[in-house]
Amino acid sequence: MINIDAKILKKIAGDEKVGREIIRRNVNAGTVVILNNKKRKMAKPCAVGFGLRTKINANIGLSSESSNINLELKKLKIAVEAGADAVMDLSTGPLSTKVLKKILANSPVPIGTVPVYELACGKNTDFLSIKENDFLEVLKRQAEAGVDFFTIHSGITLRAVDMLRENSRIISIVSRGGALLASWMIKNKRENPFFSKFDEVLDIAKKYNIVLSLGDSLRPGAIADATDRLQIEELLTLGDLQKRALKNGVQVMIEGPGHVPLDQIEANVKLEKAICHGAPFYVLGPLVTDAAPGYDHIVSAIGGAIAAWHGADFLCYVTPAEHLKLPNLEDVRQGIIASKIAAHAADIVKNVPLALERDVEISKARERRDWQRQFELSLDAKMPSVVRKTSMPKKNDVCTMCSDFCSMKMMEENLKLLSKNGKRR
Amino acid sequence: MINIDAKILKKIAGDEKVGREIIRRNVNAGTVVILNNKKRKMAKPCAVGFGLRTKINANIGLSSESSNINLELKKLKIAVEAGADAVMDLSTGPLSTKVLKKILANSPVPIGTVPVYELACGKNTDFLSIKENDFLEVLKRQAEAGVDFFTIHSGITLRAVDMLRENSRIISIVSRGGALLASWMIKNKRENPFFSKFDEVLDIAKKYNIVLSLGDSLRPGAIADATDRLQIEELLTLGDLQKRALKNGVQVMIEGPGHVPLDQIEANVKLEKAICHGAPFYVLGPLVTDAAPGYDHIVSAIGGAIAAWHGADFLCYVTPAEHLKLPNLEDVRQGIIASKIAAHAADIVKNVPLALERDVEISKARERRDWQRQFELSLDAKMPSVVRKTSMPKKNDVCTMCSDFCSMKMMEENLKLLSKNGKRR
Repeated sequence: MINIDAKILKKIAGDEKVGREIIRRNVNAGTVVILNNKKRKMAKPCAVGFGLRTKINANIGLSSESSNINLELKKLKIAVEAGADAVMDLSTGPLSTKVLKKILANSPVPIGTVPVYELACGKNTDFLSIKENDFLEVLKRQAEAGVDFFTIHSGITLRAVDMLRENSRIISIVSRGGALLASWMIKNKRENPFFSKFDEVLDIAKKYNIVLSLGDSLRPGAIADATDRLQIEELLTLGDLQKRALKNGVQVMIEGPGHVPLDQIEANVKLEKAICHGAPFYVLGPLVTDAAPGYDHIVSAIGGAIAAWHGADFLCYVTPAEHLKLPNLEDVRQGIIASKIAAHAADIVKNVPLALERDVEISKARERRDWQRQFELSLDAKMPSVVRKTSMPKKNDVCTMCSDFCSMKMMEENLKLLSKNGKRR
Repeated sequence: MINIDAKILKKIAGDEKVGREIIRRNVNAGTVVILNNKKRKMAKPCAVGFGLRTKINANIGLSSESSNINLELKKLKIAVEAGADAVMDLSTGPLSTKVLKKILANSPVPIGTVPVYELACGKNTDFLSIKENDFLEVLKRQAEAGVDFFTIHSGITLRAVDMLRENSRIISIVSRGGALLASWMIKNKRENPFFSKFDEVLDIAKKYNIVLSLGDSLRPGAIADATDRLQIEELLTLGDLQKRALKNGVQVMIEGPGHVPLDQIEANVKLEKAICHGAPFYVLGPLVTDAAPGYDHIVSAIGGAIAAWHGADFLCYVTPAEHLKLPNLEDVRQGIIASKIAAHAADIVKNVPLALERDVEISKARERRDWQRQFELSLDAKMPSVVRKTSMPKKNDVCTMCSDFCSMKMMEENLKLLSKNGKRR
């Protein structure tokens, strides 16, 4: 049984317009997870999984190239304002512990981390000096600090690393955490501690009600590498671990690809659901082409919409900065909006409560050219009115695209005439 | 038999890496069209349809709110530079004839129009003064001027207009041309001249080798209106007209929706192909939500990718300005890039020659951190290098996102070690 806080459940059920007992049942079945460390109180806890609104995650955090903590706090604020349901602090720089504490103190939404980053950064990438026990110690520290979900790369085993030797991939590993684990394993010639000591990982997660997000170290990082043996080998391991976790009362999500061509996305989602017993699927993208750096928020909105439609539950945003640089504030905002579009488009066809209703309302406002109401109902409630103001029409009931040839304006008159004329025989 | 210019066919076959005889056969079967008015010579004629690269169209043109012809010529230039395969001049203002001539003189790519716009603008929307014969006269004038393809709204008949009376749509008509035709029909109480005089329309198209793009006056303009009786009623009419046109040696494309939820896009494409005898499908979007004004280039990249994957041949771009204003230069560029992403993602899975190869090459460049080569292979070859320059890492072989924790850099060393270590038993 999963430990579920009754107050949090009540709030989530109210926000989602889904019955409390349904959510409780799904949490216990492992198809829904609630992101909320027992130690932390937050304004907006969230649940992820079957039957619920598709959620959006924003990644922020320093790299060793940047040390501006305040900038990361601004990213947190912008991400939440734009609609992020959760935020991951992926800091890898020397100030990463300091940033994490500030982010936890300032975030109204769940915070996730990849704990191995702190470990690797702290030891300055001297992997031989990191001991097995250190992997658990960093989890304990971050759990006690209040982190709500951990990405744990338990699926990359020595067996999988061996397979890399003979793989025909264009890019072997694009997961930063996965590459760190592989480095440790290869240099120390030892099994992945997150795999060999998975029971200890579960004990820590259980104690704090932390959700484990099982990372996909071997996700494809190129379209041509998608859905290959390495990826599926790891998925099978994650499915086994998910079952063990659930049996031990620990909530689990599964992380998914990555770079995937349009026609393999549905299969990837269905495969995850089948192999991992319906566990929530947390996807990065998927990116449907490798060839559009600078626009990867659009590339992954395409893949994310299709993934969410077929059952992915949680979309990790990708910003226009992906593959090029650390994102700035505007990149963060653009990334969130693109992901929200993908999630909302999917929610319409997933019959998520009130999703289609929003589109019906905005279309009614559009038909009567009620601009204010259209803005209020837009996924970005601010920007459209700013855009309209840059190009105002002579008459207020149209826009400068069509002006008097606005089809909706013409049809308003036409429909009146039609009804006056009576039916033609 | 369709009249096919041998030189143009040779050029197109070379560009597409598809055999000339295959293209010729498909043109005669009506599944491919070549956009090139017999009167016009252009640097980049293009073919649209089965087995070919998915094409992109940019809409430009003045409205009555704007009279800057030079701005429209700049949009033409930007659109073509960004990768538009064709451009439609949708001017509706008083200067529309003047703009069209300038655009035809300056465009290296095929130009399309919606001839009814010139007619309506010229008569200042006094629909009673427009005579049936005027509809044909404007076609003749524009054909002689060199327009390569016409959107002709032949599918909206009196029968369909009658149905509007009792329809339950949120927005009855969102097609500007469709609304103009409906206005004329309702006010004059007469049949649509593009339907009743379709044979004369065919004569003009045939004389100049103009492609008819049969317009979808009744396309859905709201998610909740998609794939309804009105839309399909019109599609059936278009299928009949397409057959008549092909029999008379006239090339036809079919225009398609519109606002369509994710799970109805494939059906819309398959239905068009079945009802319209495999004719090329030219879609506007589809937009997968109504609720993201300001970002409709992203909304329609999602729908466009899915549509093209399932067989749509020609994507009409949608800019971030859609539903808000006439697009500016940056809107045009953003619209084209978003459509190119959708088209390319689809071409990868449609097995279009060299599509996947591009992704393989850019991923190889990414793996070896060859930034210059990545930029060259990007769908936007300029912007990514500009973005990277705004945030340069200390070492040139990584980016500021991961810096020394670049997975590809870590794995380069790991794979060397692995191969040195020998296989673990």
